[in-house]
Amino acid sequence: MSRVQTASRTLLGYPCNQAFDYTELLPFLGYHMNNVGDPYSATNFGPNTHDIEREVIETYAELTEAPADNHWGYVTNGGTEGNLYGLYLARELYPKGIVYYSEDTHYSVAKSLRLLGARSIMIRSLESGQIDYADLRETLRIHRDCPAIVFANVGTTMKGAIDDVGRIRRMLDDLRITEHYIHVDAALSGMILPFVDAPPAWNFRSGADSISTSGHKMIGSPLPCGLVIAKKSHVDRIARSVEYVGVLDTTLTGSRNAFCPLVLWYAMKRLGKEGMKAIVNNCLSTAQFAVDLLNEQGIRAHRHPHSITVIFPRPSERIIKTWQLAPYRDIAHLITMPHVSRETVEQFVYEYVRPDDEETTVRASTPPGARVLLEGADLP
Amino acid sequence: MSRVQTASRTLLGYPCNQAFDYTELLPFLGYHMNNVGDPYSATNFGPNTHDIEREVIETYAELTEAPADNHWGYVTNGGTEGNLYGLYLARELYPKGIVYYSEDTHYSVAKSLRLLGARSIMIRSLESGQIDYADLRETLRIHRDCPAIVFANVGTTMKGAIDDVGRIRRMLDDLRITEHYIHVDAALSGMILPFVDAPPAWNFRSGADSISTSGHKMIGSPLPCGLVIAKKSHVDRIARSVEYVGVLDTTLTGSRNAFCPLVLWYAMKRLGKEGMKAIVNNCLSTAQFAVDLLNEQGIRAHRHPHSITVIFPRPSERIIKTWQLAPYRDIAHLITMPHVSRETVEQFVYEYVRPDDEETTVRASTPPGARVLLEGADLP
Repeated sequence: MSRVQTASRTLLGYPCNQAFDYTELLPFLGYHMNNVGDPYSATNFGPNTHDIEREVIETYAELTEAPADNHWGYVTNGGTEGNLYGLYLARELYPKGIVYYSEDTHYSVAKSLRLLGARSIMIRSLESGQIDYADLRETLRIHRDCPAIVFANVGTTMKGAIDDVGRIRRMLDDLRITEHYIHVDAALSGMILPFVDAPPAWNFRSGADSISTSGHKMIGSPLPCGLVIAKKSHVDRIARSVEYVGVLDTTLTGSRNAFCPLVLWYAMKRLGKEGMKAIVNNCLSTAQFAVDLLNEQGIRAHRHPHSITVIFPRPSERIIKTWQLAPYRDIAHLITMPHVSRETVEQFVYEYVRPDDEETTVRASTPPGARVLLEGADLP
Repeated sequence: MSRVQTASRTLLGYPCNQAFDYTELLPFLGYHMNNVGDPYSATNFGPNTHDIEREVIETYAELTEAPADNHWGYVTNGGTEGNLYGLYLARELYPKGIVYYSEDTHYSVAKSLRLLGARSIMIRSLESGQIDYADLRETLRIHRDCPAIVFANVGTTMKGAIDDVGRIRRMLDDLRITEHYIHVDAALSGMILPFVDAPPAWNFRSGADSISTSGHKMIGSPLPCGLVIAKKSHVDRIARSVEYVGVLDTTLTGSRNAFCPLVLWYAMKRLGKEGMKAIVNNCLSTAQFAVDLLNEQGIRAHRHPHSITVIFPRPSERIIKTWQLAPYRDIAHLITMPHVSRETVEQFVYEYVRPDDEETTVRASTPPGARVLLEGADLP
């Protein structure tokens, strides 16, 4: 266990919040609960948290400015499932549509597109990490005869860059492509932008048809989870009746985790909008602190507005391993999640700039195997 | 909480074991752990249980008689994901293949086939619930020019019927369809058949290419989970390198739950093969007890050999609600999972045969909403 604690403290490269406490919810894990099927339909399976799940969805629908009378959603196993769901909806609506996504899109999307067998075109990215709007426009223009499904990043995995959903929507209108769909992958920023002043155009109001976000990122959860929200009119078109569970099952999975809705609900209730805003502001200011400190040490570092992802040149393998970074080509990033303190940032920068042959002072830097984690516990 | 307890006691219709205790593992939920990517590859993300996951997979590979030097697998979010994975592998190997599945197949499979855009043909079922071998053979014969992907049920959701995998494999050989794939949906029986004497032909030795089973069914888990095992040679062909997480990600999801591998590992270690065998034998004998008791009361009930699913005529809506049954047309079933005692079966049969206007003696029979579950807990 102590190894998990240490590994969690040195977690800088992945956007997984480690600052949470759901002790009060653990007694629910004495039972098998299951949110099988659509959270908005009744089920004969008793131990479920569908009602809690609906509250979570409704809260997030409001935060994403979803149309009040035309939204639907569910709690997923993570961002990947939410993105797959959005793309699935889009492909069902427009089987002959082309999916456009930037080269900075998360690798799992290519996997999902392959799963769906959807036709797709990768669009260049700008140096910032945003989709190259000129390339997108030109590519859309060439394929005006096909429905357009745009996969927008809010923000990108590596650089935290935010594709301008409003601009993409206007582009589609301008080209008179009337059959269109915009899915927004807001894995990390989907829980940041609702709490900043003057956010960029990213949500339903700006033209999104579905939005996926992660629950274990900004909010924090012991288990990977997420939320997907879509316009209900889209979902209704793919609904199919099944008697077995007594529900209209419009989710991707059958049996669904009933614990994660409780986790998200608990966090949302306890923090409230003001609490989330305070956390987000703190993360943003820690991110700026990291940029400033790295620059002071002569390391080129920057971040996008409203982003907690700090980009810098790829450091040594030792640093990557110690701080669990996810490098890509010649860059790497750190993400100032709620569990990342200014002290941690200071230690990281100290490590980064010191010569590689000095002895490290960080303990338990090697990611531990779970077998090791169990040491000392009185297990079979 | 007390409502969850009651709802769990009256859970007869769904194959979810409620008899488990993982209290010792709960401290791990103080952290976000994540088994992102392939459990057999290294990752930079520290807090993971990949090593434990591999042990679970190796144990199950042995129980399913997977080829010792040619298997791969991972812990899924449930049976649906495992089935989707098997079908995805099959479609990647044979993009022009036809998927054959019986009408007794779980409804989620039709959903997955639609997701994959795979060509498929539904085969008639025998009265027993098994696939109609004559219809399957004739349909295969007509399409000998196409690769065949057979989706076999071990056993079916409603009747617990087991498709004979050996017979299906011989049929493919006999028709000289050399491009073939058999996926086995062993959601419930996949954790029963390894522990019975003289099981029917169902696993890798009989011709399976991949097998999916559930973790929250026989083994028991607070969260839905499962295992999928496939021949490694198939998986290798779809592997794709991605630098982001530093792994070859051959799983369907990206971020993956690291807690469920611990749960399965803990149960497997604590019970051992002998413990599992004892539990399975007890469930089988309770199932026979239920059949005998229902028959004694003049209700036609039966079960298949090696099955803990007891089939009987559809009872009243009151009984369906009270005991959380999943009826289908004119039949319903109860499943003697480890938490179902002979006393529970007796009470159920008593309820079944007594006139509908007598006052019920079962309390808290209405499935509670989660809001109610939280009553009394000191939550926000």
